[in-house]
This record gives sequence, structure tokens and C-alpha cells, in this order.
Amino acid sequence: MSKLVIVGTVAFDAIETPFGKTDKILGGAATYIGLSASNFNVDSAAVSVVGGDFPQEYLDLLSNKNVNIDGIEIVKEGKTFFWSGKYHNDMNSRDTLVTELNVLEHFSPVVPEAYKDAEVVMLGNLHPMVQQGVLDQMTKKPKLTILDTMNFWMDIALDDLHAVIKNVDVITINDEEARQLTGEYSLVVAARKIHEMGPKYVVIKKGEHGALLFHDDNMFYAPALPLEEVFDPTGAGDTFAGGFAGYLAKTEDYSFENMKNAVIYGSTLASFCVEKFGTERMQNLTKDDVEYRLKDFKKLTQYNIELS
Amino acid sequence: MSKLVIVGTVAFDAIETPFGKTDKILGGAATYIGLSASNFNVDSAAVSVVGGDFPQEYLDLLSNKNVNIDGIEIVKEGKTFFWSGKYHNDMNSRDTLVTELNVLEHFSPVVPEAYKDAEVVMLGNLHPMVQQGVLDQMTKKPKLTILDTMNFWMDIALDDLHAVIKNVDVITINDEEARQLTGEYSLVVAARKIHEMGPKYVVIKKGEHGALLFHDDNMFYAPALPLEEVFDPTGAGDTFAGGFAGYLAKTEDYSFENMKNAVIYGSTLASFCVEKFGTERMQNLTKDDVEYRLKDFKKLTQYNIELS
Repeated sequence: MSKLVIVGTVAFDAIETPFGKTDKILGGAATYIGLSASNFNVDSAAVSVVGGDFPQEYLDLLSNKNVNIDGIEIVKEGKTFFWSGKYHNDMNSRDTLVTELNVLEHFSPVVPEAYKDAEVVMLGNLHPMVQQGVLDQMTKKPKLTILDTMNFWMDIALDDLHAVIKNVDVITINDEEARQLTGEYSLVVAARKIHEMGPKYVVIKKGEHGALLFHDDNMFYAPALPLEEVFDPTGAGDTFAGGFAGYLAKTEDYSFENMKNAVIYGSTLASFCVEKFGTERMQNLTKDDVEYRLKDFKKLTQYNIELS
Repeated sequence: MSKLVIVGTVAFDAIETPFGKTDKILGGAATYIGLSASNFNVDSAAVSVVGGDFPQEYLDLLSNKNVNIDGIEIVKEGKTFFWSGKYHNDMNSRDTLVTELNVLEHFSPVVPEAYKDAEVVMLGNLHPMVQQGVLDQMTKKPKLTILDTMNFWMDIALDDLHAVIKNVDVITINDEEARQLTGEYSLVVAARKIHEMGPKYVVIKKGEHGALLFHDDNMFYAPALPLEEVFDPTGAGDTFAGGFAGYLAKTEDYSFENMKNAVIYGSTLASFCVEKFGTERMQNLTKDDVEYRLKDFKKLTQYNIELS
């Protein structure tokens, strides 16, 4: 089993959806990625920063899920990153109400010594220079590096983003961001242009419409499981990325064929994430839950046409 | 092999997309459905109406594809239905520029005697009373009836629509229309409500995001093939429906399992339709083209996760 380094925010979120609203709850990209990857029992470590206001019980929650927290710096006199957002009725779009960077503003990531030779590195959505900073600390070239990003960095740090994208194997990005990054509407053409920027594998996340995996001229598509109710989409993309990275770290097979499975696992785990507010559902996920839902996924996607 | 009755418009279309524009070209739901179903060599008949201005060569084109045209009434002194539309840059939305009903206004469908015992009936998008009129002429209860419709009829003839929906086995409808018909945002919930209206099978078409098939608590999902370029989306939904109906008529297996394959064939054929203006691509499709693209579909959708 490979070691997995996860860099990303560990944060407070306050979320409002048509179904209700929360006070400050546990959030952040590294949190969702870590919880999701923990379903594969990989040896993972989160690299992040929180303030003195961050409850020990949240850190314990990660530890108990086998996510090493030595790389989560605690700035005693600082405040934890806080995001607040409100989803529209269709759940596909949201307004950001509050973004308080706090300790994130001067964050300089430190990868714990024991994880500097990790085989898999998952760079969650953060400033591209922070992401590059993590790559620079690895003493052995990782077998797989995965980068997630968002339009915000394209707007304010495009050169830095291009610099780090060049150095990763896989990029996960949503459809609108892929279009923004490339200026191409067709996702097939956009993926090809992103290939040319560096990543050999491109994952385009389409929310409720699933995810596409591109590698050279090969494509693979995984739907999102159609749900009766999407309660809170927060963290679904990170949960997808965590499942993707976790499955690959566990299986140690970084081929395109195995990445297909990783995309299916990512989609499966993301389908749980949206069922409750924040990380609630991801905290109480059993092996049986995951296996059962994978069966649903197979039923949803498998058919039997014989070709000559 | 089953007989297939197809009711729908046979029309002139004038189309404008970011890639160019056409004069009046061959269009209409029954045309696209017929051309698509012809790939399965089924014994099909189109029931429709055209004016004296409709070129014989277009009728010959259908005949040559093994679509019986005895049920296409020619109103010598009338003009053929004409639709003109302009697609926006994203190709997902369009403005209707012109709709001239012409001979369609007083259309009373007549099913040819030889097809009144057809096993499969495909009711293309038309006034629900016209669709019901075709069902009423069938002398033997069809093994499968499929209805396509659109929001326009929900706006102006909802009661008639409910009346005919009650009598069909399968409905094909797009996502926005499913939401309008049921008042439900979740497609899972919308499909359940449509089941309660009558159809045992519900197909929700999501355009570039693929199609969902629902039956009781079972769901199946087929993506649309991601394309480098969508040249003209006109007729893609009808082509999907024609592939779906044609495959089922050919195989004579109306089970949910076989409908999954029918959805895949429908998606495969629709992926050709959008490659050129109007019916152009559908007129010149070979068996090899279809087989080859089905292989692409398999590559796009198949993976190999073993479950315990």
C-alpha cells in the first residue's frame, strides 16, 4: 500500500441550502479528501493549517480515520480559514457569502518527514505556489501526483497555476474551469489542450452530470448517481478526488484502466457526501455502505451488447 | 422482426448554428426517427403529412431506407410544415425564428392498413390528440408504445397529454420537460411521478449529458459520446428515439435489460446526427460506422470492478 500526502484547507464552513443552514462546521478540501481516502485504509497524511480556535475533536476525527495530522500546523494565535456559502434552489450554483483566509494567508506547507517519500500526492485546491511547495519537498519522485484547482486561481495566479500544472500527472477540474483554462467549449478539445499543458490524465468533473477521464485519445465516463435529494453539495468534488487518489494509492496501479475504477470509486463516495450537511455522512460510512452503492453503480452503468 | 409505426412531422427546417446556416432542408421528427430506425432494417411506416411543395426525392429517400411512406398524406394545395431556429454558441439552447404549421394544422393521421397490427408504435412529438388518434387505429394492442413530447404541449394541451401518456409504455422526455411535467427538480422523483401517470418506463434525455432510463426502482444511464464538435443538434432527440424504438422492434425483447441496450443504441445514433447539418449524416451511415462507434461507447463506459 502506498503512502498518500494530501494538501488542502482544513476549515470552518457555514452552509445554507434549500434544506436548512448550519453554524460553523468542519470543512475544507483536505478534510473531505482525507475522509474519502480513509475508506481505502491508506496511510495518508494531511498537510494544512488551522488556528487556535480549531477544536481538538475535529483533529481527532481525522486521526481516528487514519489520517496523519502531523502536517497540520496549528497557529495558536490565529483563526481558522472560514467559508460561508448559500446554494440556489437548483443546487448547481451557489453564492459565496464570506471568505476569511485567516491563517491560510501566510500558510507555508510542511510535509512530515515520514511522508516525504510518499508514492501518491494529492494537491487539493489551494494557491498553486503552495501546491508546488509541497511537490518541492518530496525527496522521491512520487509515482502519481494529482492536482485539483479552481477558477479563482486562474483569475489571480494563472502563471503560477501553469507552472505547477506542468509538473503533475493528473488534473481534476470542473467543466466550466476546463473551459476557462483553455478557451474551448468542447470538453474533448479542452482536455487535449490541458494534456499539452502537462498532465497525462485529465479528469473533468461535471457535478450531477458525472465525470470524464481523458488520456491521449482515450475517454472514460462515470455518471453521478442520480439521487432523490441532494442535501448539500459542499465537498463533493473533494470527496471525488479523495476516492480517486485513495483507490489508486491502495491498488498501486496507476494505469488508465485502473483509473477508470478510481473514477467510479470517486463518484460512489461523492454520492454519499451530498446526502447530509458537510462531512456528516462521510464520518459514518461503512465498508458495506460503499460496497452496496458500488453495486448500484454497476446496475446503473452496465449493459450487455455483443459486437461482431 | 416487428413492424414499427412512426408518427411525427415530416418537415422543412432552416437551421443556423455557429458553424453556418442552411436553406430549407429536410427535417421533422418522423424523418429523423425513420432514418435512425432504418439502421436496424425493421419494417417501419411513417405516418405524417406534407404539402404539394415537398420534393419527391425526400420521400424517395425515406422509401430507399425501407421506411414505408403510404401513411404520409400529401396535401397538394397545402404547404409543408416549416420550422426555423438559431442555436446559441453553447449549442444547448436555441431560439425558434419561424414556425409555420401549414398542413399540420388540420392533420388527421391515417395508419396504413398493413401496419395496424404493428408490434411497436413510436409516437413522435405532435399534438397529444394526434398521438392518441394513432393508438386508436391499432387493431391489435401493440407490444410496445413509446411517446415523445415537449413542453409546448404541456403549456397548451396538458389534459390531452395526460390522457395519452396514460396509454403508453414508454415516455421519452428531456430533463427540463420532466421537471415541468411533475414540478419536481430531482429526476429520480420526477421519473417516479411520471410512472404514476402511466408509463412503466421513463427515458429522460439530458442532451450532451446523456440519457436516463427508469423502471420501478431501477435506473440505467447512458452518456452522450463527448464530441470534438457538435455541428447541429437538430433531430438528436428524435434520432435517439428512433434508435431506441428500432432496436427494440428488431430484437422483439421489451424487457428492461434489453431497453438498456436500446438506450445505448439510441445514444450511439444520436452522436452521428449532430456531426452534420440536418439529416445529412444519417443519410449516409453504414453498418460499420455504427459498429465502430458502439465500440467507442463500450470503451467510454465499461470498467472492471470486482465486488465481493
